Amino acid sequence: MADSSVRALTFDVFGTVVDWRGSIIDEGHRLWGEKRLNLDWAAFADAWRERYQPSMSEVRDGRRPWTVLDQLHRESLTKIAPHFGLDGLSDVELDDLNLIWHRLKPWPDSVTGLTQLKQTYTIAALSNGNLALLTNMAKRAELPWDAILGAEVTHNYKPLPAAYLGSARALGLTPAQCMMVAAHNSDLAAARRCGFKTAFVRRPREYGPMQTTDLHPTEDWDIVANDLIDLAERMDR
Amino acid sequence: MADSSVRALTFDVFGTVVDWRGSIIDEGHRLWGEKRLNLDWAAFADAWRERYQPSMSEVRDGRRPWTVLDQLHRESLTKIAPHFGLDGLSDVELDDLNLIWHRLKPWPDSVTGLTQLKQTYTIAALSNGNLALLTNMAKRAELPWDAILGAEVTHNYKPLPAAYLGSARALGLTPAQCMMVAAHNSDLAAARRCGFKTAFVRRPREYGPMQTTDLHPTEDWDIVANDLIDLAERMDR
Repeated sequence: MADSSVRALTFDVFGTVVDWRGSIIDEGHRLWGEKRLNLDWAAFADAWRERYQPSMSEVRDGRRPWTVLDQLHRESLTKIAPHFGLDGLSDVELDDLNLIWHRLKPWPDSVTGLTQLKQTYTIAALSNGNLALLTNMAKRAELPWDAILGAEVTHNYKPLPAAYLGSARALGLTPAQCMMVAAHNSDLAAARRCGFKTAFVRRPREYGPMQTTDLHPTEDWDIVANDLIDLAERMDR
Repeated sequence: MADSSVRALTFDVFGTVVDWRGSIIDEGHRLWGEKRLNLDWAAFADAWRERYQPSMSEVRDGRRPWTVLDQLHRESLTKIAPHFGLDGLSDVELDDLNLIWHRLKPWPDSVTGLTQLKQTYTIAALSNGNLALLTNMAKRAELPWDAILGAEVTHNYKPLPAAYLGSARALGLTPAQCMMVAAHNSDLAAARRCGFKTAFVRRPREYGPMQTTDLHPTEDWDIVANDLIDLAERMDR
């Protein structure tokens, strides 16, 4: 990484740093198996995540006022629950299930990679997750963030420019001093349009063994890395 | 600490966690001695800090739009500079001097105490400092915050209730699940009115050897501690 102007790495979290799909499937089998809830947890995870972008679109478009992701996740859960035989759960049980997003597990390389990168750069979450979600996740998973930015700090959901520009401003940096790190080409494209540097991280199993999207970089991102440890090594060169 | 309902400790930072006055004096003598700036750095620190509350009042009262503390500090510096023979400094030099607030040093007990408290509680800065200031300070001083809340997350300066209530909400907690930790009785009084638990930490030298304010707790705060290590021990009982 010849460009020494980068001061902060800003990370997409869901899929890039943590394995949301695997975590939901694991916790589903383990905790909810106790309640004899015998369902296809992979299909459940996919159905829940499928409502992620549409739920934020209503906020992005101004059709509803600012709403944090915990609330959007909860509303989506209410909608999909009947399709998976979960409509017998109490509100309290559904509230707890909703907090599964606070308990997502990092990919095996994430903590080591972030810890290495933190020695040289400010490392910040730039996620659509809310502060409570990201704080609880970081505490449990030991993600060593210097700062948690993104949706709740800017009151804008990615890929709106204000989410990136407001996050850079909150760090007291120019966009060019920030590098967006994500496993999703669309996130990087939006960040690049705002002037951020870009790093693509391969997460070919984020959507399971049959994943077809984001398997490869679709633009000439500044860095392409196999995981966060590989990213740390490439940034160190 | 019999009350097991507390989930998060929210910290005042300037004076409670870091020694702003001593840090300014030290850096003044060390760095600025090189430039033959022979001035009374203690008086300079006090003069700068004296403008702290008035500068925020304009924002609190709605006389000016939301403005981050870095900017308020910079404007105050411009005003006091001529009184200390600093008006010969360039804008770049004054900008750098302004960043002294990003480089404040913790009291000797702060990092150890916070690290102990972090094992049991979510620990968050609830400061009037902006995110860049608090992030840079934490990185340099190794303050292990789980989250940085306060002014920039809520767009309200303490002691306005919205600063406390919005910070609790951002953590997904009720005010009663939060304990405000501060060396200033007024901060605790405002937090208590919002429903927070309260912990007073003695910092009898924050304003130097002649300090006359906040030497003692003025209300029956839930905890009174001699420093942050003492606080960790009291919370552990």
